[in-house]
Amino acid sequence: MRKRYLLAPGPTPVPPEILLAMAHPVLHHRAPEFVEIFGQVRENLKWLFQTREDVITLVSSGTGGMESAVSNFLSPGDKALVINGGKFGERWLKLCQVYGAKVEEIKVEWGHAVDSQKVAQALKKDPTIKAVYIQASESSTGVAHDVKALGQIIKPLGETILVVDAVSAMGAFDLQTDEWGLDVVVTGSQKALMLPPGLAFVSVSQKAWRLSEKAKNTKFYFNLKKERDSQAKNQTAYTAAVSLIVGLHEVLKQLKAEGLANIFARHKQLAHAMRQGMLAAGLTLFPKESPSDALTAVNAPEGVDGQAVYKVLREKYGITAAGGQDHLKGKIFRIAHMGYADLFDVIIAVSAVEMVIKGLGYPIKMGEGVRAAEELLMKK
Amino acid sequence: MRKRYLLAPGPTPVPPEILLAMAHPVLHHRAPEFVEIFGQVRENLKWLFQTREDVITLVSSGTGGMESAVSNFLSPGDKALVINGGKFGERWLKLCQVYGAKVEEIKVEWGHAVDSQKVAQALKKDPTIKAVYIQASESSTGVAHDVKALGQIIKPLGETILVVDAVSAMGAFDLQTDEWGLDVVVTGSQKALMLPPGLAFVSVSQKAWRLSEKAKNTKFYFNLKKERDSQAKNQTAYTAAVSLIVGLHEVLKQLKAEGLANIFARHKQLAHAMRQGMLAAGLTLFPKESPSDALTAVNAPEGVDGQAVYKVLREKYGITAAGGQDHLKGKIFRIAHMGYADLFDVIIAVSAVEMVIKGLGYPIKMGEGVRAAEELLMKK
Repeated sequence: MRKRYLLAPGPTPVPPEILLAMAHPVLHHRAPEFVEIFGQVRENLKWLFQTREDVITLVSSGTGGMESAVSNFLSPGDKALVINGGKFGERWLKLCQVYGAKVEEIKVEWGHAVDSQKVAQALKKDPTIKAVYIQASESSTGVAHDVKALGQIIKPLGETILVVDAVSAMGAFDLQTDEWGLDVVVTGSQKALMLPPGLAFVSVSQKAWRLSEKAKNTKFYFNLKKERDSQAKNQTAYTAAVSLIVGLHEVLKQLKAEGLANIFARHKQLAHAMRQGMLAAGLTLFPKESPSDALTAVNAPEGVDGQAVYKVLREKYGITAAGGQDHLKGKIFRIAHMGYADLFDVIIAVSAVEMVIKGLGYPIKMGEGVRAAEELLMKK
Repeated sequence: MRKRYLLAPGPTPVPPEILLAMAHPVLHHRAPEFVEIFGQVRENLKWLFQTREDVITLVSSGTGGMESAVSNFLSPGDKALVINGGKFGERWLKLCQVYGAKVEEIKVEWGHAVDSQKVAQALKKDPTIKAVYIQASESSTGVAHDVKALGQIIKPLGETILVVDAVSAMGAFDLQTDEWGLDVVVTGSQKALMLPPGLAFVSVSQKAWRLSEKAKNTKFYFNLKKERDSQAKNQTAYTAAVSLIVGLHEVLKQLKAEGLANIFARHKQLAHAMRQGMLAAGLTLFPKESPSDALTAVNAPEGVDGQAVYKVLREKYGITAAGGQDHLKGKIFRIAHMGYADLFDVIIAVSAVEMVIKGLGYPIKMGEGVRAAEELLMKK
């Protein structure tokens, strides 16, 4: 017998009661029971996104939501500014290129957050930029970009919109969609929303809707305007993933009962304890600044293969975490603390990493990491 | 207490053991356990599709699969021939138009099947047509088009491909993808595959892959080539809907144990009994020819509102069926017998319709429909 722990930066564990809610017999997507549920889900998504605007639900992975945030707002030849500081920044880049945008890129060294003044300068230099694309939490590096600062820069501009990939951010830390001027915010079901993968969500500001009126790129399945008009009647344009939405309905009720302030405080505490635990164990963190409260990226110590850490965690200790992507493969490992995560998930992770690193022959003071985490976690 | 029955043409009921399989704790989409499962799923999908080619899994509704069957094979300006005999034929039309195809349309009166000779003539008249789009089972009318005959016409042509929407056909009746020359076949999880909505599947012939090399339409999330290359390694390009795929794994094992011949014979028997039951009850069928074995569309009798039948079925008898779409609203009602369907589902449906129609004041000989169905269903 080996208990299994899913501590990857998505998909994340789903609470057992939500798994069972989704095992409820399938509802028809046009039946009144479902329409009622979807109506409540729509209201609660607005609460989660901190927006008065509609949050549109799509049946897809997060990437489908990201695609909709390009195809619905840009025309071929439009200028887009992409902040590229990791694997998912690259995805914005590729998406904008595929859709024929002229892309201005701000490259950010992996592990760093963007300097918002550089964004301000780029926008001043070229006021014809239609949209700025960024990650709130870059899952490949564990860095959080300061989207609030970007909102302050972009909100006063007449037409430019700010598009935020919040796939591993929404529900983990504060994102005030309306207040901060985040025009388009994308997330997915399989991160802090603690559901299986299969749903993407997109909020759209009035400024962004105005831009969408002019956007000439091809879209059909990911046509946000069509979905908005359909979902205004608590119906999806195409067959809804009813089981996932039934699960989402329960998740959102749980999250509302906890309250946004408590949810964010919980993630902050877990993230802080995870980072301090890793440091106390003698390891170093990959982010050079602004670590995300959703996940922690840790450098493999000198002489230890990051992929080996990932592998031993999984095979010997039953813990599914994540390795590094692309050029970080073997250099880092990543552990999430978002969604259905509580203090002992941090203890398990720090303890397991201590055992794995020690087992791989690297000198480490066993128990030091756990002790540091405990001290931070026992505080209410 | 009111037991509920889902007899709509999608989503269809999910067997309880499959619902529970999907309530298994979430697997990571890159974890070896999932890779193993997905490998078996890929093999079993080939078996179901009766093809040696890869069957690509997408996270989307069926419409997303349909979109991929347009965007991956056509360039703007390419000629497409659309067989339009219902709501889903119209969807092909819209998709082809959105993607800039020059569309030749063969309009088929709703309730009829296409005359394959008309397709042959259209292709002879214009040999530059790149792709022919059709439904194997048109869910809005309950008609099955003869895609085998179309395959015989199109297979000998050098470059033209045949694209089949099999969303409500695959797993309900025989579709010999390779043998019949069905170049691209699309289906979804929520019909005869007896899963919740959220997955689409697309098979692609070598002829169609060759055409895809020249296709210049924009695609990213629905890029079939990228998915093919990724799925060849039992990995999806983007986060897989792991829970649904775990369910699919179990479903495909069940279907294999039953065997294709038995599955098709079961659907044929249920469909035949449903139709004869409705006729014996004094009702008439909407299809004028070639009824689909996946669902039955029934005319509302003179003076009875088809929507009222749908409503009373649901509210008084706990049965979710479907009404008519667009100009058929109020004129017909539709009952499915696909996927997790057995003989007493037909008995329930016919019996309920007898009670509803009688209750709505239309003279009907109660029990006659059920008797006719019983006689057909008791035969092994």
